[in-house]
Amino acid sequence: MKVEILCTGDEILTGKTINTNYSHIARRLGDVGLDVTWGTTVGDDRASLLAAFHQAAARADAVIVNGGLGPTVDDLSQEIAAEACGVPLVLSDYWMQRMTESYARRGRVMPANNRKQAMLPDGAEFIDNPIGTACGFAVTIGKARFLFTPGVPREMRRMLDEQVIPRLLKLSGIASVTRLKRFHTFGIGESRADEMLAGIPGLAIDGDIKLGFQAHYPQLETKLAVRGADESDLTLRLAPVEAEVRRRLGNFIVAEDNETLEGVILAALRAQSLTLAVGEDYTGGNIAARIAPLVGAEGVFAKGVIMGSLTAGGVTAEALRAESGASHALAVAVQLDEGPDRPDFGATITLQIADTGGTVSRTARLVGGRDWVRVGAAELGLDCLRRHLLGLPVDERIDFERR
Amino acid sequence: MKVEILCTGDEILTGKTINTNYSHIARRLGDVGLDVTWGTTVGDDRASLLAAFHQAAARADAVIVNGGLGPTVDDLSQEIAAEACGVPLVLSDYWMQRMTESYARRGRVMPANNRKQAMLPDGAEFIDNPIGTACGFAVTIGKARFLFTPGVPREMRRMLDEQVIPRLLKLSGIASVTRLKRFHTFGIGESRADEMLAGIPGLAIDGDIKLGFQAHYPQLETKLAVRGADESDLTLRLAPVEAEVRRRLGNFIVAEDNETLEGVILAALRAQSLTLAVGEDYTGGNIAARIAPLVGAEGVFAKGVIMGSLTAGGVTAEALRAESGASHALAVAVQLDEGPDRPDFGATITLQIADTGGTVSRTARLVGGRDWVRVGAAELGLDCLRRHLLGLPVDERIDFERR
Repeated sequence: MKVEILCTGDEILTGKTINTNYSHIARRLGDVGLDVTWGTTVGDDRASLLAAFHQAAARADAVIVNGGLGPTVDDLSQEIAAEACGVPLVLSDYWMQRMTESYARRGRVMPANNRKQAMLPDGAEFIDNPIGTACGFAVTIGKARFLFTPGVPREMRRMLDEQVIPRLLKLSGIASVTRLKRFHTFGIGESRADEMLAGIPGLAIDGDIKLGFQAHYPQLETKLAVRGADESDLTLRLAPVEAEVRRRLGNFIVAEDNETLEGVILAALRAQSLTLAVGEDYTGGNIAARIAPLVGAEGVFAKGVIMGSLTAGGVTAEALRAESGASHALAVAVQLDEGPDRPDFGATITLQIADTGGTVSRTARLVGGRDWVRVGAAELGLDCLRRHLLGLPVDERIDFERR
Repeated sequence: MKVEILCTGDEILTGKTINTNYSHIARRLGDVGLDVTWGTTVGDDRASLLAAFHQAAARADAVIVNGGLGPTVDDLSQEIAAEACGVPLVLSDYWMQRMTESYARRGRVMPANNRKQAMLPDGAEFIDNPIGTACGFAVTIGKARFLFTPGVPREMRRMLDEQVIPRLLKLSGIASVTRLKRFHTFGIGESRADEMLAGIPGLAIDGDIKLGFQAHYPQLETKLAVRGADESDLTLRLAPVEAEVRRRLGNFIVAEDNETLEGVILAALRAQSLTLAVGEDYTGGNIAARIAPLVGAEGVFAKGVIMGSLTAGGVTAEALRAESGASHALAVAVQLDEGPDRPDFGATITLQIADTGGTVSRTARLVGGRDWVRVGAAELGLDCLRRHLLGLPVDERIDFERR
């Protein structure tokens, strides 16, 4: 099935807003096995919108339209959809009532121009928006089913998962329940992860699991997209594969699904009633900035210290622990190479973790330019702290290391 | 003149890579007064590329194609361009030689598959790439001029400014030299800046100056796009307008063009041989992380301290200055409101700057959710430090403040 994405709006067309809605929609479709074949961007312009609808209708089986459902005059999606279908716009009494009630609950009167958001092409299928005033809808133009979604990312994302993708899967004849399991690792590159997970999709009970990767240095995301008849079927299919991925990627998994490395560290510290101090030099506050502002970090993050050079300043993890009164201290010292910033610019990282049991340390050499080294050093420091707190080896070699 | 942008590549189509090339190209074209009317994204697929070329050729006067110029088999732009033009691909001896020499200078032998990058549609106009192996080219398909650029952002950006935009301006009949002057401000919103700069475009000697804004919280970018006959004409036109913008935006200008707020602070510290210590709580290292890693910050950034609460910890700017031995100390304390994170969640910021002359301080109330407050507090701290170092008032009210 050919699926297209059509993004509308002057802010997107002129580049003022980076089109992250497009990439989100395309990735989510890919996750459930639907292929996006074409992307179009047009502005808030009647002629362009109408032309774009007709052209997509001639190419695709399904088109996700994003944006243009707002209450203002430059929001044209319903109107042009009706024109492309050759039908009038009609008022959805149901949506008018929903909007009116929603405003009333917040003690407000609905502005008159919101009425426009309840005008849908005659005969359109209603698509619910549980968290906003822009409802979605679906119509058929030419040979393609068009599904309209709002431009507000939070609303679009929820409607995509709950409303749009199930409809697309049904259209495509694919079984209708999907789940995406994600593993976040640090220290292994995409090609090594691919090797480590050789044969994984074949472990699925009847083969309907898709394995994918997304590298965003310093982490790698490993995704298992599963389809099944229903939720319990999904759990059944996923469980053995998930367990095998967890076994193979092992200690390199820093977090799963919506967890983050820093969140995992904070949870481990809180679970054991521990406190933390952090010493940094070239990472310049980037390690502290990952933990200190987290909800729940109050009373756990005791102190951060940043100096030009921890080594020159005589700051050790043990000294920092004593000074701060924290139960644990992490010190990450970076010794930069001499010379200009280039892709082969490198640094030697020396990190220490002190607790009541003494100090463990690790050195590593990273190469890839100043920014690359800074980001990698911060991640390495946090990952070693995670490993130490969870009783895992802190000195396991990572792919980014050079000898 | 109707200009379209056609982005190619599976990474973009599938959403794996966010399409920042598109927004960069569209913004730069807007800056020089060229309007983008349509955007298309297709994958590394022959049929889609050919169809996209023909469709754009029927709609537009000019099309910027981005991507698909690499050495591998999935890079198809030259080949499909030749097919759309009905001409063969021919080897550019000139580009072969340039690539060979470039490899030789780095002591390497050019891989055989790079030859593909010197194959251009017969009769194509060569477009130079001074920093990569993917040269650009231009051909006419249908009624539109197609200009091909590489997907590597660094190469695309340079070729866009130096090669593509001048050609488009010539095609459009617009005078051929342009310049973009940028002012970065903190503390004024877009609508207030618009008011403060009322009548500015009218000050241009013959009206050929375009004023634009781009808000990226916490900063606002104010852009003057000028066109003229040649460089000296540009300077002549721009000088009085630039001076007037600088006068009106005044103390709110934190940096111009490629400067950054933190770079301006570092330069001021270095110029006066000063050193800096920073104390943070809720900003959690974000202030230090803006300055400490800068080239040239060694020996200037003396120390950063991060605590759960500077106030509770008894850390003042003066104490920090004494402890660190720095000439200047900035302390930014954030007192968060109680309650869950919501758009009306706020905080009270208390900041102090200590130097040999004593301590100056400022309080401000920011509202807009936890992340908004954290980003705003860090920026406010840095901006007040800039103001103090440059002898400007630190307590000028900003638009983000609430009473």
